[in-house]
Amino acid sequence: MPAAQRITGVLSPVVTPFRKDLSPDTDRFVRHCKWLMNHGCSGLAVFGTNSEANSMSVDEKLELLEALVKGGVPASALMPGTGACALTDSVKMTKAAVKLGCGGVLMLPPFYYKGVSDEGLYRNFAEIIERVGDDRLRLYLYHIPPVSNVPITLPLIERLLSKYPGIVAGAKDSSGDWTNTKAMLDAFAKNGFDVFAGSEVFLLDNLRNGGKGCITATGNVNPGPIDNVFRNWRGADADKLQAGITATRNIVQKVPMIPALKAIVAHFGNDPAWKTVRPPLTELSSAHEAQVITELKTAGFSMPGL
Amino acid sequence: MPAAQRITGVLSPVVTPFRKDLSPDTDRFVRHCKWLMNHGCSGLAVFGTNSEANSMSVDEKLELLEALVKGGVPASALMPGTGACALTDSVKMTKAAVKLGCGGVLMLPPFYYKGVSDEGLYRNFAEIIERVGDDRLRLYLYHIPPVSNVPITLPLIERLLSKYPGIVAGAKDSSGDWTNTKAMLDAFAKNGFDVFAGSEVFLLDNLRNGGKGCITATGNVNPGPIDNVFRNWRGADADKLQAGITATRNIVQKVPMIPALKAIVAHFGNDPAWKTVRPPLTELSSAHEAQVITELKTAGFSMPGL
Repeated sequence: MPAAQRITGVLSPVVTPFRKDLSPDTDRFVRHCKWLMNHGCSGLAVFGTNSEANSMSVDEKLELLEALVKGGVPASALMPGTGACALTDSVKMTKAAVKLGCGGVLMLPPFYYKGVSDEGLYRNFAEIIERVGDDRLRLYLYHIPPVSNVPITLPLIERLLSKYPGIVAGAKDSSGDWTNTKAMLDAFAKNGFDVFAGSEVFLLDNLRNGGKGCITATGNVNPGPIDNVFRNWRGADADKLQAGITATRNIVQKVPMIPALKAIVAHFGNDPAWKTVRPPLTELSSAHEAQVITELKTAGFSMPGL
Repeated sequence: MPAAQRITGVLSPVVTPFRKDLSPDTDRFVRHCKWLMNHGCSGLAVFGTNSEANSMSVDEKLELLEALVKGGVPASALMPGTGACALTDSVKMTKAAVKLGCGGVLMLPPFYYKGVSDEGLYRNFAEIIERVGDDRLRLYLYHIPPVSNVPITLPLIERLLSKYPGIVAGAKDSSGDWTNTKAMLDAFAKNGFDVFAGSEVFLLDNLRNGGKGCITATGNVNPGPIDNVFRNWRGADADKLQAGITATRNIVQKVPMIPALKAIVAHFGNDPAWKTVRPPLTELSSAHEAQVITELKTAGFSMPGL
């Protein structure tokens, strides 16, 4: 069987809608995922940081994932987050994702213990890969030290890639540090290691240096223009297009990002139920909400067809 | 029904033995718990940081907890860790603990998101308490900012204690900052809020200021002498006894704590299987193992009856 084509382009770490009782709202979730796939996203990194994924149990996530595939979103476009603190949770989530045919999984390191060694992290990822035991697994390492506080270092990537080529497929770099992304690209892009920027702010730089796209929070609300940069990055107006999506990003990230994304979907989709977040997050303050919506409108932002 | 007596004294965050295949070793776990209860511990804070609890799934922990109660350890002496990133996981673990009759639960804040507000953390704990919905719940807040990176602030305690008196029963302070423990004691000890030091180094200070004991890593290996300080803290030789247990602690904490505790149990119990840890932790290096065992022996350390 020939290897399936790798995911490239713009992926959204899909925000998760919750009902008033804080249970995941499957229908709204599937609907938003379909809107994203029809408006610029080439893939969906469901269960990412912006999805409040770690605020849900493994079973809650598996139910959403199954509903998504049943609902008609192609599994090959899905890159669910499957990395947890508990080895057994990571294995369970990853096995289920591979069995459903997901194009990849985006894997956090175990993030409770801080200052752990690369040896310990290597053992974690290797143990998961061995237990899943399926050549169809495409594992993307999730480097997000500002939140996880547990970095994925270059020597760790090198060791995993050398032991599991083809299975260790790439990384999302959410360090916010372009120097680090560039170092990842320089070291591994030529070896079939697909680097995704963790923000569209770095999309053009990433593509120009051998990267494959971006997995970005703002993909939830601005997928079309971001995808436009991806499709036209070799074009004469690429820098201008990049400046446009960076400007939108800068409006959104002035306020707390996750509740902001939900408030934006709620506003432009005329669906206030979207504002609900799970603790420990809180919804956007009225002042912040008014600010972000006003600034977006002034900038001509829209979410067509939502 | 009169309220059950609160847990006081020395609690051990029990280290969790794993088999070669990294599955929890129930028999060794129950055996070690019984040894601890017979050698100085008045309670067991199973599933703490030193238990590698967050490296286990909820179901793995529940199986161990049930085995412990079935094995004859009194549930009233148990204070299992039940706080997780996912609200639904925290509720499931806490409900099960209360149903089994546990004397309390030790609850981490959700620790994936950093820089969250007290409002968000309040909602997390309040939601768990409401969903558990059982007056028998005794909730101890787990403040361990060096690992969780999410602090439990004094205003948060004040708000929870005022809304849920009797249920919010106390805290473990593992900040390593005596000033913080002292502030907790000064503010809340008189209101039925039981403060446990997170290390026996602060045991005597804690007791002298209205605290109720300690929940300490080293309780796994040195419970008798630590309990001796607890029982004799008003005595003339209290400071001398405290100096003794502090000296032992200082030997152990020179090397990575969790694998060190396991290596000590393995050595003094003549049971090498105890050394196994789950990723992302790694076992103690041979050099560190030799160092800690030699220094303990030189200091006259023993684990009678192990």
